[in-house]
Amino acid sequence: MLPIAIDVMSGDRGPGERIAGVVQAVRADPGLAVLLIGRPDEIGPHLHGLPEAIRQRIGAVAASQVIAMDTPPRAAIRGGRDSSMRVAINLVGERRAAACVSAGNTGALTAMAHYVLKTVAQIERAAIVSAIPSEAGHTLMLDLGANTRASEVQLLQFATMGAVVARELSGIAAPRIGLLNIGEEDIKGDDTVRAAHALLQQSSLNYIGFVEGDDIFSDRVDVVVTDGFTGNVALKTMEGLARMVSTRTRREFAAGFANRLAAWLARPSLRRLAQGLDPRRYNGACMVGLGGVVVKSHGQADATAFARAVELAATLGRGNLCAQVAQAFV
Amino acid sequence: MLPIAIDVMSGDRGPGERIAGVVQAVRADPGLAVLLIGRPDEIGPHLHGLPEAIRQRIGAVAASQVIAMDTPPRAAIRGGRDSSMRVAINLVGERRAAACVSAGNTGALTAMAHYVLKTVAQIERAAIVSAIPSEAGHTLMLDLGANTRASEVQLLQFATMGAVVARELSGIAAPRIGLLNIGEEDIKGDDTVRAAHALLQQSSLNYIGFVEGDDIFSDRVDVVVTDGFTGNVALKTMEGLARMVSTRTRREFAAGFANRLAAWLARPSLRRLAQGLDPRRYNGACMVGLGGVVVKSHGQADATAFARAVELAATLGRGNLCAQVAQAFV
Repeated sequence: MLPIAIDVMSGDRGPGERIAGVVQAVRADPGLAVLLIGRPDEIGPHLHGLPEAIRQRIGAVAASQVIAMDTPPRAAIRGGRDSSMRVAINLVGERRAAACVSAGNTGALTAMAHYVLKTVAQIERAAIVSAIPSEAGHTLMLDLGANTRASEVQLLQFATMGAVVARELSGIAAPRIGLLNIGEEDIKGDDTVRAAHALLQQSSLNYIGFVEGDDIFSDRVDVVVTDGFTGNVALKTMEGLARMVSTRTRREFAAGFANRLAAWLARPSLRRLAQGLDPRRYNGACMVGLGGVVVKSHGQADATAFARAVELAATLGRGNLCAQVAQAFV
Repeated sequence: MLPIAIDVMSGDRGPGERIAGVVQAVRADPGLAVLLIGRPDEIGPHLHGLPEAIRQRIGAVAASQVIAMDTPPRAAIRGGRDSSMRVAINLVGERRAAACVSAGNTGALTAMAHYVLKTVAQIERAAIVSAIPSEAGHTLMLDLGANTRASEVQLLQFATMGAVVARELSGIAAPRIGLLNIGEEDIKGDDTVRAAHALLQQSSLNYIGFVEGDDIFSDRVDVVVTDGFTGNVALKTMEGLARMVSTRTRREFAAGFANRLAAWLARPSLRRLAQGLDPRRYNGACMVGLGGVVVKSHGQADATAFARAVELAATLGRGNLCAQVAQAFV
């Protein structure tokens, strides 16, 4: 496999955190080689003292600029030609990297990825797809914020792409597709959602109809389709609720002798519960519909979380996602 | 206080469940009188054997029809003139009830409430507002599904109404208002959200700017404003995640001796955690912006949850919400 290009400069934390995550991923996967993109003087110090076997699979490509978390998309394209984000995407476009990863700002990443890699087949816009933990394992959901609103045709395209990802990543032959709405009856929702519903009913997809927010966690559906505004709000809402529950649980079990003893007795269970809610374990969303693989990490990702995003890029880089997506639109 | 009119016929469960909830609420509040609306033969049997002191505060008004959970709004208005939902709303309109409660279908309830009670002042559309548990206590959120999309003017009106509810229900003098978006920068979001942002910045409200889904649970904001589609999806997403976490926690603590012992030791904490996540404790959303108080219960509410909705209606019925809302638009 070609190396994975990694924008180590962009994100809410310092590059050291992300480089530590890359090293974790490289250690865990003997077939993985990476290219760290960014300012050499900010990358070099974090690579000192690594064993040679690891070090030789970590290359570097210089990029002088960093796209800030609040840079508008157009400014990023115009003014960021030598940014770590842009250089990482370029390497994918030039077939010198199998995939790229960035924890940078979603708007800039989406705009640059569209600009450099272009959408494949007749796809109008790429979408961000990720796995959400559910009762049965996980549910794929898209779009999580590559776009704000989506037309009915774009929603149909998201559904088609989501089905390909479910086949490729989860091995589901005929994934069940649901369209997110505020009720399950045909009369509910706005015009766009109802028009997309009609298109999906006529499609060859395994479309199960409207689903609601709570169905994301159920065993009813494999792929939940929505526009990027609604998807992003739902994702952030989950993150916020999960964080609140974790904080409350820790607080309860830390207070008083009986609770601390209980926490000690139940520590494997509490660890499993905490992991099931830990957004770091689900870090890494894939931008789908482009002529190359782009993985979006959470901006606040720590080393452990960023390693997950690098692993996802490696998995997708080894596969054939772009060709499969293009195939689905023939 | 005038009695509270209760549509006991509409909802996913049988009327017995809701009547049991009403009885709970009447027992708990000596100043509360209610009118049960529905088919006498389906209500009567559930009132047998009640103590006279309770029984005398429970009146009944006959209504021959029940609006089904999938009846379209217009059909409900046209064909449901003697439905339990309509009769309950009419009693509010005729000032024979201080408020009404229904667990019936949101679309029909919203349409009928607008038709009978009308919006006050220059309010275009009423919104559904509810308290969401947060780290600091709770956050109010609206619209949770009275409408699908909202214009920038409607979003500003929702913000104004939300501020009144926060003052009336939570006693906050200058509630912090946030507009739900997919990023905190001014460049994010669609045209409507950006236009609403500009209107809110010019308003006299204590507007803190854009907030994201995870902020709902933080201590940053008192009132989160969004359109009914996004709000309803976020609400249902929370419900689904909370249910999954509860199920997983129960499963973990039921398996193995150490876990069962831990669960026994930590039972007050586990109970507090479960209650904090229990949507039944937060049942009851208020439709705000109309010339009368309408409380919407979750369709699947059991007796305990329905009692919460009745209590909310009593609290609002004792207050002066409609006049306060109208006042805010003068």
